[in-house]
Amino acid sequence: MTGTVYLMPNTLDFGVVTAHAATEGLPDLQQVLPLGAIRIAARLPCWVAENAKTARAFLKRVHEVVPLSQPLQAITIVELPRPHKGAAPSQPPRLDALLAPALAGQDMGLICEAGLPAVADPGAALVQAAHALKLRVEALSGPSSLMLALAASGLNGQSFAFVGYLPIEAAARVARIQALESLSRRAQQTQLMIETPYRNTALRDALLSTLNGNTRLAISCGLTLDTGWSRSDTVTDWKARPEALPNDTPAVFSLLA
Amino acid sequence: MTGTVYLMPNTLDFGVVTAHAATEGLPDLQQVLPLGAIRIAARLPCWVAENAKTARAFLKRVHEVVPLSQPLQAITIVELPRPHKGAAPSQPPRLDALLAPALAGQDMGLICEAGLPAVADPGAALVQAAHALKLRVEALSGPSSLMLALAASGLNGQSFAFVGYLPIEAAARVARIQALESLSRRAQQTQLMIETPYRNTALRDALLSTLNGNTRLAISCGLTLDTGWSRSDTVTDWKARPEALPNDTPAVFSLLA
Repeated sequence: MTGTVYLMPNTLDFGVVTAHAATEGLPDLQQVLPLGAIRIAARLPCWVAENAKTARAFLKRVHEVVPLSQPLQAITIVELPRPHKGAAPSQPPRLDALLAPALAGQDMGLICEAGLPAVADPGAALVQAAHALKLRVEALSGPSSLMLALAASGLNGQSFAFVGYLPIEAAARVARIQALESLSRRAQQTQLMIETPYRNTALRDALLSTLNGNTRLAISCGLTLDTGWSRSDTVTDWKARPEALPNDTPAVFSLLA
Repeated sequence: MTGTVYLMPNTLDFGVVTAHAATEGLPDLQQVLPLGAIRIAARLPCWVAENAKTARAFLKRVHEVVPLSQPLQAITIVELPRPHKGAAPSQPPRLDALLAPALAGQDMGLICEAGLPAVADPGAALVQAAHALKLRVEALSGPSSLMLALAASGLNGQSFAFVGYLPIEAAARVARIQALESLSRRAQQTQLMIETPYRNTALRDALLSTLNGNTRLAISCGLTLDTGWSRSDTVTDWKARPEALPNDTPAVFSLLA
């Protein structure tokens, strides 16, 4: 009997907690995570994590709600191999080895720094390796910034695409925005994208200066945080009523032409 | 001071509870919904719902966790206007009227029969009306069958599209599957789709007989249910090891060529 690989959602406050904690306090895990997921997190002896340090911080927050079934130091946390940029790795990462506990019958977890693992985040290769080994994979409910942003946008939720990051170079970025607007108009498909927080304003400005005036643009910033907000407007209206975007808080951008 | 429009996630067990409740019991709301969302649901005096009856059933489940701040009979639940199929409505639905409580300063909720409102579900037009009235819109964390299926698929979560339902007519369906496979290969974009449960097997068969053997197909069935499962395999492997699909349980299909 093999173990289950649980895909554990994390909160969306990664990286912004330190900036805001002094005034607002750490959001309780139960604001955004179901007790069902927290209970499973509290009992798992083995983890694969995007980052071991933030996984330990997550488990400390779990412990405040449901006591961990063993001391934190006794819990195994192994990091996902980092993607090799540029040069190909000399050999493919040994993902099967990371799944050894599940093959030996233990339940284990996969966790990223924010949101659902393997969605706009690493982990998909490990999930695929788990399927190849015929391990049971179960994704647990939790916050997804993309779906929260899509729901809050009021744009088409019956047809949508997440396209990740746009090119940074100006001309390539403009060309990509025009292609996404054209695709959105043709297929009536909402296009969602994200950006590194310190480039939020640059992306917003590129969208506003490139898109047609009657294309709708929605921005959700700091989702699930007390300071979070969502606005959905035409490009013309965004230009008429500009709005400051924080450069230290994740945002999701959605457009529908 | 106007009220906030909360987009309230519902469980994913709609329509399958009656089929399975006798043997498995109703899942506790806290298995899939964060206490933060349940607390907000318990205090909202006004709702707009896809279906008033299922919204009342949801509030009864909320009450088992956090007592409702007023009797269920005192809570206002108004249904979303149903989309007019075929003929255009004589006049556009009066969505602003549904938002009158928020304009008058009361917080209110929008809820669908399963999952997040306005994602693969009605409600987007109401959210857009709320933005037009400058009301605060906040989406709350909860289960999203699409994101759970995507995470559990191990397919590309950095680029994906949800395309809704495929055509029912055989030739049109085959053409659509081929177009999605071609798009998926070109853009390395995972394509997600859903089907009415009693057509699960028909869609699976159409996918298996149309897609290339090395295209990856993932199916998640009964997500968040005790009986739920996810499998991700090549088309060739699906054919070699067929698997029965229940025809009374929602499934999400994902492909990556």
